[in-house]
Amino acid sequence: MVGLTQVMENEAFMAFASYATIILSKMMFMSTATAFCRLTRKVFANPEDCAGFGKGENAKKYLRTDDRVERVRRAHLNDLENIVPFLGIGLLYSLSGPDLSTAILHFRIFVGARIYHTIAYLTPLPQPNRALAFFVGYGVTLSMAYRLLTGRLYL
Amino acid sequence: MVGLTQVMENEAFMAFASYATIILSKMMFMSTATAFCRLTRKVFANPEDCAGFGKGENAKKYLRTDDRVERVRRAHLNDLENIVPFLGIGLLYSLSGPDLSTAILHFRIFVGARIYHTIAYLTPLPQPNRALAFFVGYGVTLSMAYRLLTGRLYL
Amino acid sequence: MVGLTQVMENEAFMAFASYATIILSKMMFMSTATAFCRLTRKVFANPEDCAGFGKGENAKKYLRTDDRVERVRRAHLNDLENIVPFLGIGLLYSLSGPDLSTAILHFRIFVGARIYHTIAYLTPLPQPNRALAFFVGYGVTLSMAYRLLTGRLYL
Repeated sequence: MVGLTQVMENEAFMAFASYATIILSKMMFMSTATAFCRLTRKVFANPEDCAGFGKGENAKKYLRTDDRVERVRRAHLNDLENIVPFLGIGLLYSLSGPDLSTAILHFRIFVGARIYHTIAYLTPLPQPNRALAFFVGYGVTLSMAYRLLTGRLYL
Repeated sequence: MVGLTQVMENEAFMAFASYATIILSKMMFMSTATAFCRLTRKVFANPEDCAGFGKGENAKKYLRTDDRVERVRRAHLNDLENIVPFLGIGLLYSLSGPDLSTAILHFRIFVGARIYHTIAYLTPLPQPNRALAFFVGYGVTLSMAYRLLTGRLYL
Repeated sequence: MVGLTQVMENEAFMAFASYATIILSKMMFMSTATAFCRLTRKVFANPEDCAGFGKGENAKKYLRTDDRVERVRRAHLNDLENIVPFLGIGLLYSLSGPDLSTAILHFRIFVGARIYHTIAYLTPLPQPNRALAFFVGYGVTLSMAYRLLTGRLYL
């Protein structure tokens, strides 16, 4: 287990691990938010989910879509679309020997931007709050990708 | 290549690699399931996909949504939403030097819960089968995140 | 930081890092494509997004769905569904000590197939262009998973 102890001694990787765990936990919270929203508003996508609220035709009226639920789902999907590149590129970036304070700055801005994005999406705050949060997070990931692609490429 | 041989000698990481490959292969199966479902039921989302089934107006009738196809797609998206955090948090967890049997227990329960979730979603089994499968997998990922966040955080 | 220097000296891992960064950057481009498509066609999902185009009832007419926007979103989701397994399985595969030229061949074919898939989806090219691109990328990931699962499994 020598190699791994050394990996975990790399500070940029440790920082990446911490911020990645935080932002993934935040993303998981969106699943609970969707479930909560579906239950309190009685809006379901599957017949078996609303079986407890009534029988037959009475239950079918809960099979509908709802603005609020769709909003949470869009926020969740947007998270997924942005956190997956961050995880992949951030992992490789943190292993590529970046300057520690630069790396931490990248991770902090990304996590902050995504949390603000969720707040702006769910409140909802007027635009361009959400758009700005999106582009800040997007820019951070691109900046890490740029650093990787202009570094030692191996194609 | 010394460093990597050492990484691959880490048993918790090896176990993570095995279970992650299994659950990702299962998730990839959902793509085939959607394609199969679309072809057997002739339900398509793109005009070019049903060009082989007829010309002009005749083909357009296949551009529709279908309960069964939407169910497979929801199961796929739910997989994606849950397996992405598992991959990220599980990778970092397996590198953080966990107790081997505890780590394997986490991975086994997660993989079992997600396979059961797919079965419960596609059959479909009555609730709370699917909800329980979801929350078991969710709990496993949270438990690994908790272990990471209460361990050596580097913010 | 000894362990990491060694990780970054592993050529298969370096190659994976390069190709993963390229394909993730391509996937991020889909977000911009969706945003561009929404703005030029004035098709929005959230009331706050079209507040700038008019007030009250006048703005609501932009809350609609559009074939073109939905096409970009489907291409994006398909990317996500296929690139996530590639990232997970490819990372573990590149760490499992594969033959270097075989590994690079896998990564190159996958990246090429996914780029062709996006072109085929957005143009759109007639089938089976998109289906072939999909199955080539799918096959590459399965081939890496097969290699992992028939190698040293640790369950």
